[in-house]
Amino acid sequence: MTNLNRNIVALAGGVGGAKLAHGLYQVVPPEKLTIIVNTGDDFEHVGLSISPDLDTVMYTLAGLANPQTGWGVRGESWHMMAALARYGEPTWFQMGDRDLATHILRTQWLREGQPYQVVTAELCRRLGIQCAVLPMSESPVRTMVQTAEGELPFQEYFVQQRCQPVVKGIRFVGAESAKPSRPVVTAIRHAEIIIFCPSNPWLSIDPILAVPPLRRLIVASQAPKIGVSPIVGGQAIKGPAAKIMAELGAEISPVGVARHLRDVLTAWVIDYADESYQADLTQLGLRTLVTQTIMKNDEERARLAREVLEFAK
Amino acid sequence: MTNLNRNIVALAGGVGGAKLAHGLYQVVPPEKLTIIVNTGDDFEHVGLSISPDLDTVMYTLAGLANPQTGWGVRGESWHMMAALARYGEPTWFQMGDRDLATHILRTQWLREGQPYQVVTAELCRRLGIQCAVLPMSESPVRTMVQTAEGELPFQEYFVQQRCQPVVKGIRFVGAESAKPSRPVVTAIRHAEIIIFCPSNPWLSIDPILAVPPLRRLIVASQAPKIGVSPIVGGQAIKGPAAKIMAELGAEISPVGVARHLRDVLTAWVIDYADESYQADLTQLGLRTLVTQTIMKNDEERARLAREVLEFAK
Repeated sequence: MTNLNRNIVALAGGVGGAKLAHGLYQVVPPEKLTIIVNTGDDFEHVGLSISPDLDTVMYTLAGLANPQTGWGVRGESWHMMAALARYGEPTWFQMGDRDLATHILRTQWLREGQPYQVVTAELCRRLGIQCAVLPMSESPVRTMVQTAEGELPFQEYFVQQRCQPVVKGIRFVGAESAKPSRPVVTAIRHAEIIIFCPSNPWLSIDPILAVPPLRRLIVASQAPKIGVSPIVGGQAIKGPAAKIMAELGAEISPVGVARHLRDVLTAWVIDYADESYQADLTQLGLRTLVTQTIMKNDEERARLAREVLEFAK
Repeated sequence: MTNLNRNIVALAGGVGGAKLAHGLYQVVPPEKLTIIVNTGDDFEHVGLSISPDLDTVMYTLAGLANPQTGWGVRGESWHMMAALARYGEPTWFQMGDRDLATHILRTQWLREGQPYQVVTAELCRRLGIQCAVLPMSESPVRTMVQTAEGELPFQEYFVQQRCQPVVKGIRFVGAESAKPSRPVVTAIRHAEIIIFCPSNPWLSIDPILAVPPLRRLIVASQAPKIGVSPIVGGQAIKGPAAKIMAELGAEISPVGVARHLRDVLTAWVIDYADESYQADLTQLGLRTLVTQTIMKNDEERARLAREVLEFAK
């Protein structure tokens, strides 16, 4: 199991990505693991700086995540939201009472001028997380979803409109000029394995790759670059990936995703349910591992993480 | 009851003042009532703009106040605080989950650059409050308490140190240059009765009078200027007024308070328990009403408000 001692970089978005990140966290020495997280979902709401994917990863690694939703804090209550509703404020974006402490501290520290990665590291440290969790960039990147009903900021598309509008395109405002922090750059430079967690490729992985230095570093990396397909049996495990792929004209299969990420991948992990796609993936030039990719509990997360690392040998 | 139709200005701080303000709110047409509130207690905490006395007055008028404490929201929960404690943040200043909605909205709107009085009016409007509730000044005034252990910002003295340090003096940083808003100035100019609610004279009334245009306007006003003594039977109904008076060498009696506020008063309302002080107050040149000044419920607040207004004739 020598791979368990190599420098691992995992790229992750929300719920699905956080699960594999947690698996890696269970099996890799924390000082060897860096999780780089999508921040395209970030937004400001009632004056608070909110980072949904970072929070999901943090809460998952800290063992605080709500097991039902995958996001938010377990055993959450919603009294502040009720008071906000009483004030007549919109309630489409729910902030739990416990979750609020994270938003409040992050907002305070960012306003004080602390770098985003330092703020994130401090939140993680205080939750007892021992590996590095890093926002993909220091400056804001904002995912905008072009729909049949006009362009929508990500959270309005995703939460307020529940992914109902038909997606025509996606852009990442600020990505072109976004600067990753030094720890992000260093982690990718020294990565001995790069793992694309099973997050939404269009909404969670693309924003990371839209930051030019990140794409350049990842493309240039000589490390094995292994993705885990978020599409299993023609469906997304969670979220709107399959719907978006259909709307954007992509094949809803592990091959459809692999084609989309082709220039940054060397290998691809698919579920037993998709074994029939192996030949197509080989034709794309990708090494393929077929295994059980659905993670129903902590043990299955650790097991998949181990298999992916073994496969990288 | 013609006085019930005159322009009333009430000056108030926290709990005691809010009770009489609520009494006035019950008996005066809302368009005739302006409550000017101490903001010397305001502070920033975990990046939120907090206005304790305004909140107490708002919650009291809206019928939301916690009847046990007098401050905060009834039926409050503390889950955000528990999460903040988990992050290792200090918890000496408690913010309830429902109360947080107020801090979050105020902070957001102030940061957007809206005037303090507009922000306050909007919060009040949304809580269904129909009279004018105004912060005493637009720019920050910060009460600093000089103690045997050094100078402390108000909340550190009041909440964190529970008023334990011996008070040697009090100053109101920013008061000299503070600007009251136009509605505050207009209300005092047109006031036909000015009422000093039974708030702590040193900590709640003095900061209002420390704003030079406010003191000038109040001294110049030809309206009856009636105070209700917050000291009854040698004690403060609530809070550290008696302790502070002792430490500052003032007589702990309605006379001691009346002397302190002498230049802005024309009349003084004392409790039956303090009837013996009437002669001393007359000697100070103050008209005096003796009545029951302790307000145990909504009806007693309204009754005292009516008596004060009748007395002003």
